[in-house]
Amino acid sequence: MTSQSNLLKSGERIDELPAANIKIIQSQEVFAFSLDAVILAHFVRENHRHKLKTVDLCAGNGAVGLFLHQKLGGHITEVEIQPRLADMATRSIDLNGLTDRYSVVVDDLANVYQSVPKDSADVVVCNPPYFADLPNSEKNPNQYLAIARHEIKTNLATVVDRMSGLLKMNGHGYLVHRPGRLVEILDKLTAARLVPKRIQFIYPREGREANMVVIEAIKDGKAGGLKVASPLIVHQGAEYSPAVKAMLNG
Amino acid sequence: MTSQSNLLKSGERIDELPAANIKIIQSQEVFAFSLDAVILAHFVRENHRHKLKTVDLCAGNGAVGLFLHQKLGGHITEVEIQPRLADMATRSIDLNGLTDRYSVVVDDLANVYQSVPKDSADVVVCNPPYFADLPNSEKNPNQYLAIARHEIKTNLATVVDRMSGLLKMNGHGYLVHRPGRLVEILDKLTAARLVPKRIQFIYPREGREANMVVIEAIKDGKAGGLKVASPLIVHQGAEYSPAVKAMLNG
Repeated sequence: MTSQSNLLKSGERIDELPAANIKIIQSQEVFAFSLDAVILAHFVRENHRHKLKTVDLCAGNGAVGLFLHQKLGGHITEVEIQPRLADMATRSIDLNGLTDRYSVVVDDLANVYQSVPKDSADVVVCNPPYFADLPNSEKNPNQYLAIARHEIKTNLATVVDRMSGLLKMNGHGYLVHRPGRLVEILDKLTAARLVPKRIQFIYPREGREANMVVIEAIKDGKAGGLKVASPLIVHQGAEYSPAVKAMLNG
Repeated sequence: MTSQSNLLKSGERIDELPAANIKIIQSQEVFAFSLDAVILAHFVRENHRHKLKTVDLCAGNGAVGLFLHQKLGGHITEVEIQPRLADMATRSIDLNGLTDRYSVVVDDLANVYQSVPKDSADVVVCNPPYFADLPNSEKNPNQYLAIARHEIKTNLATVVDRMSGLLKMNGHGYLVHRPGRLVEILDKLTAARLVPKRIQFIYPREGREANMVVIEAIKDGKAGGLKVASPLIVHQGAEYSPAVKAMLNG
């Protein structure tokens, strides 16, 4: 394990997610995980098989994959295109003493088969950029954040295609996204042999429209039989709801 | 208006929906509307235009269409294949003094263009049979109820096709269905030029999976931008939730 003085670069801090018993290197200027990552990891089904293979696409600072270290057995590969973010992930893996269970691939996910064989993963998780890269879309001038939020370096079609390609038959893919694109997401998943089996909508507070959706799909699963899990409400008054507090604090 | 003694046939009763200020002829043996019909009508946007044209497909005893008599202006056509149910609808229309605003078509909805021109409706609502008519599906031995619940006389593909065909460009289609078939529903709507724009999930009680979904689609609408309305929870303890009580009692 690296000593703490070498661990952090300028502007970085260490955050903890007690519920997942993990520390993560964060940076407001480069990348900090949001509640979306916590909710996605929480939505993943536990599986403690020793030989399990998991891939985290659009891994950023490795948050989603790291949150899963107790829920999932086996090996987890973090795939991130931005070297600066992948470096944070590598140091967070080290910080948590998890180097034997994790690897980091610094590459465009379009090239992922060069690092992880096709049809080899049991689980693929992804917290992709949400916003289409339209000519008139307002993007963050900070390029790190713009790439994480907008489909500049990848897009939904590629994410879904690689998720499907990486998964074994009956493997489970998990995606967090915006409800506004739900129709397109379900369509693309289905076209890529990923059958949506469970969905949960996340609402900022009672009486408001959903602003997030998490989806579980099974490669070559039986069509139909979609389950819509009970809604998750994020805020209650000025605080997080009890359900979200439990996801954060355990 | 018919005198009450001639109004009811054997086994029938009159139910009221105070929130919609309407009386409906019901029969446990033939057809009685369920909460699904109330929720669908509640989900429809108000529109008081005098020339509005609305079609209620799979109308049963006319419940959904009748619930809309104050929310929608203009004319409402109830399309029902079972003569016994269409007769109940006709008598309910009479009972409420609404004969000048309603007509009843007794026919398979596949033939609906013989009664209502293509591209002529502003609003189409439908509470269709939910269950595929599979060789091994258990059906109610009561044929009236079996036809209302199972896709014996029609199916989702035909319902969606006729909904789209009846609607004008930018007309609004409303459907209530089971979440288990959501992926198929969204796919069929989209293929029929009906762009899903608003969805609400209905949960039997807190912490449970959704058991109903209502969908609003716009013919030739702009793709994307789906809104997921705040969840509706039906029961709270042994009672209906305040939201559902309001839908029933006003």
